[in-house]
Amino acid sequence: MVERCTSPIVLLCLFSFSALTLAFSPCPLTGLPLVRNISEIPQDNYGRAGLSHMTVAGSLLHGMKEVEVWLQTFSPGTHTPIHRHSCEEVFIVLKGSGTLYLASDSHGRYPGKPQEHFIFPNSTFHIPVNDAHQLWNTNEHEDLQVLVIISRPPVKVFVYEDWSVPHTAAKVKFPYYWDEQCYQEPPKDEL
Amino acid sequence: MVERCTSPIVLLCLFSFSALTLAFSPCPLTGLPLVRNISEIPQDNYGRAGLSHMTVAGSLLHGMKEVEVWLQTFSPGTHTPIHRHSCEEVFIVLKGSGTLYLASDSHGRYPGKPQEHFIFPNSTFHIPVNDAHQLWNTNEHEDLQVLVIISRPPVKVFVYEDWSVPHTAAKVKFPYYWDEQCYQEPPKDEL
Repeated sequence: MVERCTSPIVLLCLFSFSALTLAFSPCPLTGLPLVRNISEIPQDNYGRAGLSHMTVAGSLLHGMKEVEVWLQTFSPGTHTPIHRHSCEEVFIVLKGSGTLYLASDSHGRYPGKPQEHFIFPNSTFHIPVNDAHQLWNTNEHEDLQVLVIISRPPVKVFVYEDWSVPHTAAKVKFPYYWDEQCYQEPPKDEL
Repeated sequence: MVERCTSPIVLLCLFSFSALTLAFSPCPLTGLPLVRNISEIPQDNYGRAGLSHMTVAGSLLHGMKEVEVWLQTFSPGTHTPIHRHSCEEVFIVLKGSGTLYLASDSHGRYPGKPQEHFIFPNSTFHIPVNDAHQLWNTNEHEDLQVLVIISRPPVKVFVYEDWSVPHTAAKVKFPYYWDEQCYQEPPKDEL
């Protein structure tokens, strides 16, 4: 059997198959060009109406270890869940406007009433590690488009039904929706 | 003296003074609004003709610990030094075009002949940790504007005179030019 696998024809078939797999794989990781056209990167709404998410540079897709970059668009009236994560997050508002709700006191038992911050085109802000927050497109007439940078990818998200849910009762979502398809469990320690 | 300092007028003076200091401080760290207008963030060329650098979200200016975001513009014909750093770096080309020179083999004794990659508007690429690289605006007619994301701020840069300089002879620059004004030496261990 080993001899049969070294036949040049079989090798060619194997090569063609793997090239084909690479071209159509949703989780390429290797084999991508170094410089990529952002307008050709796949985007999806991951089951959330009015959302467009694209991973511009990602842990599972591109092998990033320390930072990840997303491009997200929220249609009017749409929003993120109330959530927190133990990583840094920077936003750059490319277009549109909206409201950031931020519960700064992550040391209480639950987030509590958040502060409201108006966000506008060409503005930037960052979310302190573990602070519960929510982003809304509160502009009725325009999409809100943001570039998002996080540390410690892939992100583990804790979701709150409302601002009075105790931190300990927030629901963990990992891998997050856009990481589900390409996430692989790390090998278990046999010892 | 303590009693005199509790006078409401003195307190008011102290407040005014500190507000004034804050407004004019190049290293505010605290007291900045959470949402900032990018067009109002200071920019400088740090002694390099044709460069505009702005720290959009930074370690020394905004208290970031894990990621930092820069907005940089290179006029036609200008470029970064040949350099490396032990952090991840993601670029997003906002406008203009140019060439990325990347010496992928960081395991050799020196960078060696780099690969050339054309970069264009709305493209993205990342630099593997410790790979020597250089970015040129090779477009004679247009500025090259990039958004840059790094991990592990503030950045420590190793600069090469040319591609044949041994890694061990690259010159370290820390704090880097835009971090010099606000960098403070960590307290020395007395033991």
